[in-house]
Amino acid sequence: MTYCVALKLNAGLICLSDTRTNAGVDNISRYKKMFTWRNPGERAITMMTAGNLAITQAVMSMLQENIDKPKEGIETLFTAPSMFRVAEIVGDAMTVVQSRYGPALAARGEHSESTIICAGQRAGGQLRLFMIYSAGNFIEATDDTPFFQIGEHKYGKPILDRVITPETALDDGILAALLSMDSTLRSNLSVGMPLDLTVQRRGVFDFDQERRIEAEDQGFQALSQSWSDALKNAFSSMRDVFQ
Amino acid sequence: MTYCVALKLNAGLICLSDTRTNAGVDNISRYKKMFTWRNPGERAITMMTAGNLAITQAVMSMLQENIDKPKEGIETLFTAPSMFRVAEIVGDAMTVVQSRYGPALAARGEHSESTIICAGQRAGGQLRLFMIYSAGNFIEATDDTPFFQIGEHKYGKPILDRVITPETALDDGILAALLSMDSTLRSNLSVGMPLDLTVQRRGVFDFDQERRIEAEDQGFQALSQSWSDALKNAFSSMRDVFQ
Repeated sequence: MTYCVALKLNAGLICLSDTRTNAGVDNISRYKKMFTWRNPGERAITMMTAGNLAITQAVMSMLQENIDKPKEGIETLFTAPSMFRVAEIVGDAMTVVQSRYGPALAARGEHSESTIICAGQRAGGQLRLFMIYSAGNFIEATDDTPFFQIGEHKYGKPILDRVITPETALDDGILAALLSMDSTLRSNLSVGMPLDLTVQRRGVFDFDQERRIEAEDQGFQALSQSWSDALKNAFSSMRDVFQ
Repeated sequence: MTYCVALKLNAGLICLSDTRTNAGVDNISRYKKMFTWRNPGERAITMMTAGNLAITQAVMSMLQENIDKPKEGIETLFTAPSMFRVAEIVGDAMTVVQSRYGPALAARGEHSESTIICAGQRAGGQLRLFMIYSAGNFIEATDDTPFFQIGEHKYGKPILDRVITPETALDDGILAALLSMDSTLRSNLSVGMPLDLTVQRRGVFDFDQERRIEAEDQGFQALSQSWSDALKNAFSSMRDVFQ
């Protein structure tokens, strides 16, 4: 499985993904599910993928190939005039890949479902956060729904529901994303370390952070342990509330 | 959907269920999913159901009918000599009902999946907690897995994973079950108030508590609000931990 979460806050965009892929519990691998493109000062884009790995890898490769070997009249992630247009390009690539492999997968009773989170900002544009579906269509995050999750999303949703609003500070957003991931890691074997994180501030057309958090990361380990302790303390403090 | 959780602690058994049923989001009803049988001083049994409502209602009705209109040679929930035998009786009823309606449901492309949690204790026996599947087979909770959840189980699992061990005190278990339900209620519309709760102490062959918790219940409202505040405080205290 997979767990990826993206927050669109007034202060910026935060993307966090795990790296575990599995085909059954006895076939577990590590794959990066976060992909980034940056042209410092002009644009920075993060994508995260869930679902059929062959499908999402093909979409990512197609997007990259169009950049590496530019063709006349073919817009790329670097030349698209808006983030909306970027989302359309991703959706179009998804449609091409699905039509190539979808029928054969369906004939074998296998699924081709895939979703891609696409977050970014370009000079002259706003922060945008999209979720692209298998059919190539997509939705955008709004103030009412300032975060998207893909993959194993349920374990990590309660903390986001309680904490995240568009006004949430960037550091708090990073914290909430990490704690959401921590809850998921603890409750579901199919989601695993290391993690990939990008942070982009509003009006800054580059990544503020683009880093991998390894299993041995002392900061994350301390956070995980402190959160566990804080939850247990919070739990203890409830004893007097409900009789 | 549904959310039911049962804990088997050294101190006793705790069962908690919601009461929301839905066939699509535009067809929401309230149904009790908890069923109890007690013969004070001799046995007390709680069952909770999830899945196809017609199936689980038929199973519950069949179990009750065998009690109301006893037949020669037919064991009932009240005459079964052990909780293991009770679980077998429930599994047998499930098999009968599934074979009656399962094929017609399958032919219509509808599912007949149902699960039943069965918890109880009888004089001379131990606390037992079982989960009965659609095929009539079942598993039992052990010290390694001291809780069962059915229905919409993911949102409420992290708090149980962190807090529940066999040594957890009964009051703490009740609290954890309620907080697990609270997280689920907040994150998923298909789970709703009121709640049904039973508590049974080890060695006491009756219910210590058997109550409905209404949406207006001041104790639960206070718990829900205090937990929300405590989580936000716990979250705030993480700011210094991860930089």
